[in-house]
Formats: sequence, structure tokens, C-alpha cells
Amino acid sequence: MQFDTLALKFDKKNISILDQTALPHQEVWVDITAPQDCVDAIVALKVRGAPLIGIAAALNLAIFALNNPNKDQWLMWAERLRDSRPTAVNLIHHLQAMIDHIIKDCQADTLYQMAIEFFLQDQKMCDAMADFGAHELTGKNQILTHCNTGGLATAGVGTALGVIKKLAKNNPSFHVFVDETRPLLQGARLTAWELDQAGIPHEIVCDNMAGFLMMQNKVDAVITGADRIAKNGDTANKIGTYTLAVLCHFHKIPFYIAAPITTVDPKMDSGLAIPIELRNENEVKGFVGSDSKFLWSPKNSKAYNPAFDWVPNGLITGWITDQGVYKAKDIEKGCFTQEAICGQ
Amino acid sequence: MQFDTLALKFDKKNISILDQTALPHQEVWVDITAPQDCVDAIVALKVRGAPLIGIAAALNLAIFALNNPNKDQWLMWAERLRDSRPTAVNLIHHLQAMIDHIIKDCQADTLYQMAIEFFLQDQKMCDAMADFGAHELTGKNQILTHCNTGGLATAGVGTALGVIKKLAKNNPSFHVFVDETRPLLQGARLTAWELDQAGIPHEIVCDNMAGFLMMQNKVDAVITGADRIAKNGDTANKIGTYTLAVLCHFHKIPFYIAAPITTVDPKMDSGLAIPIELRNENEVKGFVGSDSKFLWSPKNSKAYNPAFDWVPNGLITGWITDQGVYKAKDIEKGCFTQEAICGQ
Repeated sequence: MQFDTLALKFDKKNISILDQTALPHQEVWVDITAPQDCVDAIVALKVRGAPLIGIAAALNLAIFALNNPNKDQWLMWAERLRDSRPTAVNLIHHLQAMIDHIIKDCQADTLYQMAIEFFLQDQKMCDAMADFGAHELTGKNQILTHCNTGGLATAGVGTALGVIKKLAKNNPSFHVFVDETRPLLQGARLTAWELDQAGIPHEIVCDNMAGFLMMQNKVDAVITGADRIAKNGDTANKIGTYTLAVLCHFHKIPFYIAAPITTVDPKMDSGLAIPIELRNENEVKGFVGSDSKFLWSPKNSKAYNPAFDWVPNGLITGWITDQGVYKAKDIEKGCFTQEAICGQ
Repeated sequence: MQFDTLALKFDKKNISILDQTALPHQEVWVDITAPQDCVDAIVALKVRGAPLIGIAAALNLAIFALNNPNKDQWLMWAERLRDSRPTAVNLIHHLQAMIDHIIKDCQADTLYQMAIEFFLQDQKMCDAMADFGAHELTGKNQILTHCNTGGLATAGVGTALGVIKKLAKNNPSFHVFVDETRPLLQGARLTAWELDQAGIPHEIVCDNMAGFLMMQNKVDAVITGADRIAKNGDTANKIGTYTLAVLCHFHKIPFYIAAPITTVDPKMDSGLAIPIELRNENEVKGFVGSDSKFLWSPKNSKAYNPAFDWVPNGLITGWITDQGVYKAKDIEKGCFTQEAICGQ
């Protein structure tokens, strides 16, 4: 059986990914059937998005195991894959679960079933979020989004972008504003490409234009993804998300987070506990592309480059998850506690 | 007598400008003594900033007249220079005043005196703004600014950046955050270069990081320039300025405009009357530099590219002008009306 998504194709023998570093100008599919190819693709960001990385690596390991009887090799590659991107939580979870099974001497078929399960589960979560979100946001025709949260980041329709795609269906007045999302430009490069592929009307804007759009009543709602959600609902996401939330608050525009419930980390009491990665200043001092690099700032100047920021719960209208849409009052009642999440 | 500023050098025979399209990587001085060279430099944005363009063109015409007795040629070039950049208000004002004198059969020396007067007046206005602003903002050590408003845009120390330079003097704890100012990156390219030249500690940030900086108490005040100020104090400036003003309001951080009183247009009742120029979408879809151009967005995607936005008076803490610092109550009393400005 052949499986086929926007950025991933596989069967029991082969897996290939859409090289995201070549987008939007070229659509290049790359075989990552050998585990080393998969590690390389993850490190080089050819495959990106926490859910998609985890699934690609799990499938890669399973297909390798199906075609290679040496279980020592399974374990070695499982560990190498697990450790290839330390911030990708799904990757670590999925591969660790597979390692636990290998140690218990499972068969290759079991690993493949596990990987397929991760894959289908992700698609199901995306579909559920899209359904819940589209219902919640019915009638909102002008949506602004940030970063990339679609089929290039997940095995399914995406998180925030999945909601947007669902809202766009059979709605001729629907329009998306795509924040370019400096410094790495995931909006201008990837989200715009996905919306173009899907035939959804959209305009790219510089991140600093969001306020002026809102002032002109051009935005009905903002939806973004999440990298991590604390127990109290504070939400970390791509740098620039906090500024959008403040702008929404000022303009009385709803601001939504869309993320699977697995993004909630009940061990984090609040956003203050979420570590913020500081990245290389050259990303800010210019443009770092796959095959080109351009520095437009003075060599001597310093730059500040936090990869994420976080939004206090009070600025968030709702959390669209695969379990439903939660509001502040639900969080107060404990819907993001360890017990509630594990109980679900 | 030789005059010498950050971006302009001239005497009675020659005028040369610092080519701003080559910054920050190269410091190239270009002679623009022939009027056609000046027109070309204005069109190619080698000289930019409304005050500086007006002064460079006025000096260029005067020096041409001093070295060329044909008054028909003076008139022809005066008109060509006047019309070389339709949005540059100072250029139009200065050159029209010179045309009026040429028609009245003035001497070349009169034109040179006029140009010198424009030049000295601009320096004086900058110094006055810097003094008033530095007094107003005493004790603010962490300033964020947007776009370029310094010696690359004026004949003097600048408007907002002039205030910043004055505040930085003898203050070892002073620090500037420079918004990169997408799409044309005047902050990352030009303001960072000026601050580096002046030895003032600074960090470049992407425009979408301002909110997160404020959340962390890293910003004591924001100062920007202005392209046009309406009678009620509403202020148009580079796109992104409105977003900064909203962020300041939310975080209770003072937000100041610095601009000469000549920026006030009393014929505009409010910001709604100020026309907003929409520019080519390719500036947003990638990077358009002097000698390079890179498109990182999908070819099919559209982009929205307003060059300016405007800030309602209620979000502005004060207007730092060469006449003093005005507050909302001064504007209510009519300090920006035709009578008040012309009376000054």
C-alpha cells in the first residue's frame, strides 16, 4: 500500500520526502530509505515540523528493519535517528517507544505498525483540529497566520493551516494574510506555497504590517500553531506570535492557538518556565537560504535572535486541539493538567 | 569653504554624496556636480531621506549655476530636479523657491546662498530636536527605533536618531534596538551602520521581535521619525510604526515622534486624510538590494506592500520638534494649525 501526503510518500520498501529547503521554487522529492539519508535530511532541515520529523524518522527505521534482519543495526539507527534533532519532541517520543520495543525483541512488522499508527494518528489529530477549528471560526473570512503549520509540518492537513484550509472550502470570500515570518521566512516560503498549491487566495505581508491590516479591519481572526503549551495555557510559538496576540487584544480580534493536545506540557506551570532558544545572529543580519546566504547588515553590528516567544493565557481566545476547543475557563478547571491529559 | 556631513560633502565647485545603495558594505563617495548625475542619484536612491534629497538638489543646482552662465539651463535643470522624486516634499519646496528666484532674474550667488540656508537650517533643526528630545527622555537607556532617521536622511544629526545619539553621549549604559524595517531594511542596513560609525552599542532585531523585547522590560521608550503629521497629531511614518505604537500602549512604554515642525501638514485634518503609497509587491516577496535581488516567495503568490502606516494621536506620548516637545494638550490648543505653524 502506498501512502502519499503533501510532503511524504512511502510504502513498505521506500520513503521519500519533499525537500523543503528547495521550496518554493523547486519541488524536489528525495529518497530517504537509508537511515543515514534520513538523519542527513533532518539535520539539513529538508524535512521539518515536529510532527513530520517524528513520523518520517519512525517510518524510516521501520522500513529499514523490514529490509534488514540485523537487530543490532535497528537499535543503532533508532538511537541515531532519535538524537538527530534534540528539540523535536515527537521525534524523541516516537523513536524511544520503538527502541523500547526493539529491546523487548519485537519483529520488524511491529515497528512498521507502530510507525503507521503514528502516521495515521497525526492525520486524525489534524482532521479533528480542522473540524473543531472551522466550527469555532465559522463566518471569519479574513485570517492572518504566522510561520508554517500545514502539510509541510505534519502528516495531515496541519494545525493552524489545517483549520484555515477547512474554512476556505466552498467559501469564495475567504482570504489569508501570510506573515512572512522573519528571520527564516517559513510564511513567505512555505505557507504561501501550500496555499498556492491548494488554490486558496492569499497575500504575503511583512510581519510589521499586521497592525495596519487590523486597523483597516482586514483581519477577522489570527490563528497560529504552538511549540509548547504550559499548564496554565501560556503558549510558546515562533517569534512574533506574542506581538500578534497583543495587536489582536488591542483591536478586539480573536486570537487562536491550534495544536494537538500532546503539545501541552503539564510540567510547565507557566510561560516563564518555557526555555527560549537563542539562535545565530546571522539569521537576523541577513537571509540564510538553502543554497544562498546574503548579509545585508554591517559586519560589526550585533543582532538578537530569539527563535520563539510566548503568549500569556489572557491574550488567547481559545486553544483548538484534537480534543476540542478550550477556553480560559476550561483551563482554570484543569483541562491542561497531567491527569486531564493522560486521562483523555 | 568646504562643508562636510555624514553623507554629503560640498564647496562652491563640487558636491559629492555617500552612495547609500552601497552601504553598509562599501562606503563609496560619488560626485553629483552635473545636474543629470544628481537626478540619477535621486532616482536610484543613492541619496535618500526627504531633507537630504532637497538639500542635495538645491546645492547641485546652485553649484551648476555658479559655473554656468546660461539661465535657461538653470531653469530647465531646476524643473528636472524638482520633478525627480514626486513624494519628496522638501525637494519640491526648495526647488520651487529657487525657480521663483530664477524667474525673477536672480544671480547664481543668490541661489547658492539659498541652498546654504536650506542646509544650515536643516542642521539647526536637527540640533534643536536632539536637544529637546534628549531633555525629554533623560534617564531612558534602552531605546528602540525604526527605519533610518539620522545623518543619512538629513544634513544634520537626524531626527529620531539625532535624539538617540544625543542620549547616548557619555552614557555607558545606553543601548539601541534597531528594527530591521522590512521590506527595504533601512534599519538593518543604514541605522545599524550609523550607530556602528558613532560607536553606539546596538542590536538589530526583526520587526516581529519588538513585542517580546517589551515583555522582557528591554525597552524604555520608542522613538521614530515622521513622514507627515496631521493637524490633530495623527502621524504617518514607515510601515510598522503603528504596530510599535500599539505595543508601547499595551506595555505602558512612551512612544515618541521626532520630526521638524515643517512635517506638520495642517491641511490634513487627521491620519485618515493621509494617502498611503502602495509599492511593488516584489519588495515583500524577497529582497531587493542595490546590486542583488532575491525572490524567496512563490511566483504565483501575491503580496501587500503599503510603504507607510499612521498612528492615531492617542497612542503618541509626545512630538519632539525643533520648536519644542508637544503633548496632546498642546495639539488640542491648536499648536499644529496653519496659523500656529506659520506664525512660528
